[in-house]
Amino acid sequence: MVVDENTVLKLMIMDKLKTTNNVLLKELSWALGVSVDRIESAVKDLGRNYLIELRGNRVLWNIADNPSMLKPWGWKLIHEVILGSTMEYAKGCGLWSVVVAEYQLLGRGRHGKKWIGGFGGLWATFRLPIMHENANYLPLVIPLIIVDILDRNYGVKTMIKWPNDIIYGDKKIIGILIEAEAMRDRLIANIGLGINVNNDPPLPGSISLKKILGRKIPRNGLLSLLIGWISRVEKLLDDPRELKERYMERLATLNKKVRIMTRKGVLEGVAVDVNELGELVVEVNGRKKAIGPDLALEVRHAD
Amino acid sequence: MVVDENTVLKLMIMDKLKTTNNVLLKELSWALGVSVDRIESAVKDLGRNYLIELRGNRVLWNIADNPSMLKPWGWKLIHEVILGSTMEYAKGCGLWSVVVAEYQLLGRGRHGKKWIGGFGGLWATFRLPIMHENANYLPLVIPLIIVDILDRNYGVKTMIKWPNDIIYGDKKIIGILIEAEAMRDRLIANIGLGINVNNDPPLPGSISLKKILGRKIPRNGLLSLLIGWISRVEKLLDDPRELKERYMERLATLNKKVRIMTRKGVLEGVAVDVNELGELVVEVNGRKKAIGPDLALEVRHAD
Repeated sequence: MVVDENTVLKLMIMDKLKTTNNVLLKELSWALGVSVDRIESAVKDLGRNYLIELRGNRVLWNIADNPSMLKPWGWKLIHEVILGSTMEYAKGCGLWSVVVAEYQLLGRGRHGKKWIGGFGGLWATFRLPIMHENANYLPLVIPLIIVDILDRNYGVKTMIKWPNDIIYGDKKIIGILIEAEAMRDRLIANIGLGINVNNDPPLPGSISLKKILGRKIPRNGLLSLLIGWISRVEKLLDDPRELKERYMERLATLNKKVRIMTRKGVLEGVAVDVNELGELVVEVNGRKKAIGPDLALEVRHAD
Repeated sequence: MVVDENTVLKLMIMDKLKTTNNVLLKELSWALGVSVDRIESAVKDLGRNYLIELRGNRVLWNIADNPSMLKPWGWKLIHEVILGSTMEYAKGCGLWSVVVAEYQLLGRGRHGKKWIGGFGGLWATFRLPIMHENANYLPLVIPLIIVDILDRNYGVKTMIKWPNDIIYGDKKIIGILIEAEAMRDRLIANIGLGINVNNDPPLPGSISLKKILGRKIPRNGLLSLLIGWISRVEKLLDDPRELKERYMERLATLNKKVRIMTRKGVLEGVAVDVNELGELVVEVNGRKKAIGPDLALEVRHAD
C-alpha cells in the first residue's frame, strides 16, 4: 500500500491540531516546514471530512469532532493520528481503554482482510473485561447497541447483516471486529468498530452518515454514546432471551436467501436463525446447517 | 509523490526512537499498534541506513547517529523525523538554528527542483546571520568547508562542481542550497545541505559516504564538525583572496569543457574562472561569458 503526499501532509497537520483547537496558519507552516499555501489547501481538503475549518488566518478543529478533546469518565482514551491498527494497539493497553486512530497504516478487518478506512471515519477499539459466560453474546449486543444509537440519536434506521456488519439499505455503514483474550477468571474483549461517519467510502457498497444526513457529524457525540453503552454492556446481558429477540428483529439477514463463501466452497440457502453460539442457521434443501462467523469469509444477501 | 507503507512504518518507529536510544521491541509494538514481526523487519531494514540495530529483544539507535542526542553549543538543533522541507522550516526559526529532518515530504533543491533524499542521509538547514559584504562569498566558503571536513576527518577526497555540488570522482555526494533574507543591517542566510551519508542514492550519478568507505558513518560527528565550521564562517572570510585561491584549487569545473542548460538555451565552452559575483566565466569561441548560478539550470562536465 502507498500513502500519497497529501495524505501524509494532512496527517502532519492533524498531529499538530489535535492538542489545540485553534492555531495560526502561519504557525502550522512554521511547525511543519510547509508553505502557507500548501497548508491552506490541505486544510480546505480536511474540511470535507472533519469539522476543521479555516477562519481568517486561523485553523480551527471543532472540539466536538477531535477525540483528543474528549475525557470519558472511567476510560482511558488514546487518540493518535496514525497507528498500525487500533486492534493491535489495544493489545498493549490496560482494561477500559479506547483507542482511536485517524489513519490505520495496517488496519484490518475479519479474516485478516485489509480495512480501508479514510479520513473522517471513526476507527476505534474498546478494550474491557467480560465474564466468560457473556462472551458469546457480545456479537449480538454490540451491533444492537449501535443500531439503537443511530436510530434514537441520529434518526438513521439501520439493520444488522450477519455476522458483523451494520447496513443502511443494502450499503455497509459499520464494520465490527470482536476478539477475545483469555485471562484467569474472565476474558478481555477487544471490540473494534469501523464507522463511516464523515469519510467518503471508496467502495460502491458502502455509505457514510454524512451522506445519509447531508451534513458532517461531530464524532465526539457518537463516541460518547458508544462509550456509555459499552460501559454497561454486561448489564444489557441480564436477559439473554430478550436480547436475542431484539437482535432477530434487527437482523436483515433473517429469512433472506444468502450466499456464503467459505474456504471449502459456497453455501446457498435461506437464513432462518442465529443460534446461541452466534452461528447462522441456513436451510439448504429442507435441511438446516449452522455456520460460524469464523468460517464465513463473505456473506451476500442474494435477494 | 507517494510514500510506501514501509517508509511510513519506519518514520513511525524513528519518531519513537529519537527520544530514547534503547527500547523494547514489544514496547514499540504497543506504542505503534504494529505487530512485533512487522516492527522487527522494519528495524532490520532501518539498520541498512542508520546505526539502528536489534539486540535481543531491544532496539538500539546509536546516540552518535541520532541528531536528537546532539546538543550543539550556541545553536538550537531541531530534529524531526518528517518535515515538509528543512529550508521552509528554517524560515520560522530563530537565528543560529539547525534543522535536521530524516524525511522531507516536499524537499527541494535549486530552481524548485524536487530533492529526493532517503533514509540515512543528512538533510539539514543552518540559519544564521551574515554581514551584507560577506554574502557573495558564502557559495565559495561553504563548499570549501565541506570538502575540507571530508578530506581531513574521513580521508575522502572530493571536489566542487560549480555552482553548488560536491562530487566524488564524477558522482554527486552533496548538494548545497543557499538562500538569503534581508534584515535591516545584515542578512539571514539559510544554508541547506543534502549529504549522502548512509542513504542509498537512487540515481546512478550519485554516491554516498557509506559506499565510498564501506561502512556506515555516525552522523553526529559530521554534523558537529559542520556546526563548528559554520559557526566561524565569517572569520574564514577575512582573507577573500586566499579563499578564492583555495576554492579554485578544489573546483573540478575549472578548465573543463562544460555544457550549461539555461532557460534560453544551451551554453557550451571551457570554464576558465569564477568571478567575485560567483558567476562562472566560460570561454566560448575565444570570447568570455559570465553566467550566474540563477541562470544555470543544469551544468554538465563534458569531459
